[in-house]
Amino acid sequence: MNLTLLTDFYELSMMQGYFLHQENPPVVFDMFFRRQPFGGGFAVFAGLQSALAQISSLSFSPDDLAYLQSLGTFRPEFLDSLADFRFRGDIYAMEEGTLAFPGEPLVRVHASLIEAQMVESALLAILNFQTLIATKTARIRLAANGGTIIEFGLRRAQGVDGAISASRAAYIGGAAATSNTLAGKLFGIPVRGTMAHSWVMAFGSEREAFEKYAETYPDGAVLLIDTYDTLGSGIENAIAVGRSLMRAGHHGFGVRLDSGDLEYLSKRVRARLNEAGLTEARIMASNELDENIVRQLITQGAPIDAWGVGTNLVTGGGDPALSGVYKLAARQDKGRWVPTIKVSNNPEKVTNPGVKQVWRFTNGDGGLLADLICLDDEAMTSGRAYTFHHPMGDYRSFTLEKYSAVRPLLGLRMRQGKVAGELPDLAAIQAHSRAELDRLDDTYKRLINPHLYKVSLSDSLNELKARLIRENLSRGAQ
Amino acid sequence: MNLTLLTDFYELSMMQGYFLHQENPPVVFDMFFRRQPFGGGFAVFAGLQSALAQISSLSFSPDDLAYLQSLGTFRPEFLDSLADFRFRGDIYAMEEGTLAFPGEPLVRVHASLIEAQMVESALLAILNFQTLIATKTARIRLAANGGTIIEFGLRRAQGVDGAISASRAAYIGGAAATSNTLAGKLFGIPVRGTMAHSWVMAFGSEREAFEKYAETYPDGAVLLIDTYDTLGSGIENAIAVGRSLMRAGHHGFGVRLDSGDLEYLSKRVRARLNEAGLTEARIMASNELDENIVRQLITQGAPIDAWGVGTNLVTGGGDPALSGVYKLAARQDKGRWVPTIKVSNNPEKVTNPGVKQVWRFTNGDGGLLADLICLDDEAMTSGRAYTFHHPMGDYRSFTLEKYSAVRPLLGLRMRQGKVAGELPDLAAIQAHSRAELDRLDDTYKRLINPHLYKVSLSDSLNELKARLIRENLSRGAQ
Repeated sequence: MNLTLLTDFYELSMMQGYFLHQENPPVVFDMFFRRQPFGGGFAVFAGLQSALAQISSLSFSPDDLAYLQSLGTFRPEFLDSLADFRFRGDIYAMEEGTLAFPGEPLVRVHASLIEAQMVESALLAILNFQTLIATKTARIRLAANGGTIIEFGLRRAQGVDGAISASRAAYIGGAAATSNTLAGKLFGIPVRGTMAHSWVMAFGSEREAFEKYAETYPDGAVLLIDTYDTLGSGIENAIAVGRSLMRAGHHGFGVRLDSGDLEYLSKRVRARLNEAGLTEARIMASNELDENIVRQLITQGAPIDAWGVGTNLVTGGGDPALSGVYKLAARQDKGRWVPTIKVSNNPEKVTNPGVKQVWRFTNGDGGLLADLICLDDEAMTSGRAYTFHHPMGDYRSFTLEKYSAVRPLLGLRMRQGKVAGELPDLAAIQAHSRAELDRLDDTYKRLINPHLYKVSLSDSLNELKARLIRENLSRGAQ
Repeated sequence: MNLTLLTDFYELSMMQGYFLHQENPPVVFDMFFRRQPFGGGFAVFAGLQSALAQISSLSFSPDDLAYLQSLGTFRPEFLDSLADFRFRGDIYAMEEGTLAFPGEPLVRVHASLIEAQMVESALLAILNFQTLIATKTARIRLAANGGTIIEFGLRRAQGVDGAISASRAAYIGGAAATSNTLAGKLFGIPVRGTMAHSWVMAFGSEREAFEKYAETYPDGAVLLIDTYDTLGSGIENAIAVGRSLMRAGHHGFGVRLDSGDLEYLSKRVRARLNEAGLTEARIMASNELDENIVRQLITQGAPIDAWGVGTNLVTGGGDPALSGVYKLAARQDKGRWVPTIKVSNNPEKVTNPGVKQVWRFTNGDGGLLADLICLDDEAMTSGRAYTFHHPMGDYRSFTLEKYSAVRPLLGLRMRQGKVAGELPDLAAIQAHSRAELDRLDDTYKRLINPHLYKVSLSDSLNELKARLIRENLSRGAQ
């Protein structure tokens, strides 16, 4: 399906307005978010490849134009101009899998005002959602402390692509596999899944159902043991089948718990499996899990090896949207870049003006120290001491002298409307996000009330921001 | 894109198992949910047409089969059978827009076990999500007490289809329009949208931005007045432009508030508009709204005419998934239907066995009284008194003698894999959901702690359930 019209209608209203008023200068927009999701200390940037694919395929079909024409809002000359519309701008962005923090640009769009406006809605929809889910998954993976995370969310996902793109993002955030077969096909994510309660109910008895399953899938048979009585028939029938599989030399046997008290049941089930000589058998748990439940079970010593996580992983649970925004940072006027700012009564909502780069400072082990938002034309020299100004633009600052390296996070990912360079495959992105998290101090990774990672403004940006706030406060009344 | 593989992998594992064991009897599955979303008293059933479209188009492409083959899990004879796979079953369901309550079947799938299993994941994904969003929108519309609801959710939606299908469901639930242009094109939903802050920032001054906008769109100009100073430049510049539009005979002028205290600002803005003679000007509000915020503002007398609702409407906010499930209700054995049950230690999780119909009892005004789940072959006679048994299958019951009419809710929507009969258009579905809500007593529509609408079991179903619980408790150990 052509998704060009996947845009807020006001983008089109504004585009026609800019077109008719010949107000179409080169501009720069930033995409950033103001608050970490889930009350956490980091976000895992995800969705870039999906967004670039969408942007590079933008093209109004005759059908789309006929629909717009039917609305009675658009003039023929504007619709004619849309027939040739392509996004021809440049996009700078972080690499997918990079850790991101509030206030720093994740993406910078350089384009004509009309083109930049046209990509806003889809860019935000795709990046907000995938970043949310990659972040949620990373939190669940941290909580599981080495346990395997399997994404089971399809049936509770928000629409078809709510499922498909959630599977992609979950893999980036560290899920080992998905239940979503189509996501497996599209993205090369490992797929997993064995049986539902309906399998156990479809046969004459639980024992027969387990035996039939093991006959079909002698390796990797994970039996669902809570259909009738977990600690009665369920575990005993599973042990009988597991032992004959073991005697026949098969591997990967396990059981799944999908209801009841997971700590109590997993401990009892582990003990019975071990007594029966099935020490290699794995225990998988599912049932409305999230990072807090997983962490609590791990802390209590529940011997669970793998976690099937659905609803809360693919929707974000109680925090169902990253509130990423897209704000005008600069526009050209007579060939020169003019930084722009949106001033608000709320200091947190004042934007950072100008064309900017994010620099990440690291220590000798590669450990993340702090990020500095600079103007793009500032020359950065590794080794120099830098002053970090609080992003609210007030008096607070500190100087960072001891660091080992500094690197820019925003790279050119699209040049004149075409994807620039090779895009990494999904496994490489997952490895990058995992490595980034390994380099982030544990204090930032606490699930609740984490330490606040510093994102600051450079001297130049801080001065520019202060000046523009003063100049712009009276602008509305001009 | 072919979405046939949009299925949990365990469906395919089980399907191969059933195929190899020649265990493929006719079965009936029910789709139902156990808990109303948002702590509310009703749900608006939505998503059926989308689900039927998906199910009737199921067909494994050579590509899909090659992918499945590459996984090493499936035997050639099973993959061959998939090449001819079509869903050829029957589907009974409520009409979209019908009010639905916990425990009652919304959908009943009659098919071979393999076909019934194959449609589970997508059916649940689509119906769970659209029902969630239609319900959320209906709650927001009730809270707005006659105000207009406009769905603004694209940029915070969960993926591409999380946006598109949310727009569809929101319209069913009572939204007047959407910002999502593609949803407008696909479903004929009215589209709306005027300007972002970037429009106001793109011109030399706020006044110029408003004037340019009004020049382009003299009718229906809704000006965003909070870019600089809502009660200063914002409202005054808007009034100047609004008055010249009024003098020139234009209509539909209004202002939008997107930040700050919406009660305080809307009252001050209303007063200034009225003083300036712009009594017809409408006030629109947006900014992280939900039904509780809207209700509170209405209760406090905030003079807001239209509500732009985004994140919480298209994601469900803190309750991001309807927990609909799909359970085996009956299977044929030697030509005769055998009801099936899943017994659980938790009485709420015991399923209702057998092939069932839901009957809705109404009073003289069409007002909803109660729903009775019956076995499908029970003859219902309007006028007779019926005993309503508590769905937990315990001793509680009451008798309903005074009612005016009773009608079945599940109708045949798909026959042998093809959509049965004419499907209503989206406007008719919206009208149906609105009429249903009008006929529901206010006590069930309270946003918080509503009265519990009764969904009960008939004598026959209650007896069957009690008998099967006794018979099945020992089944696991057979």
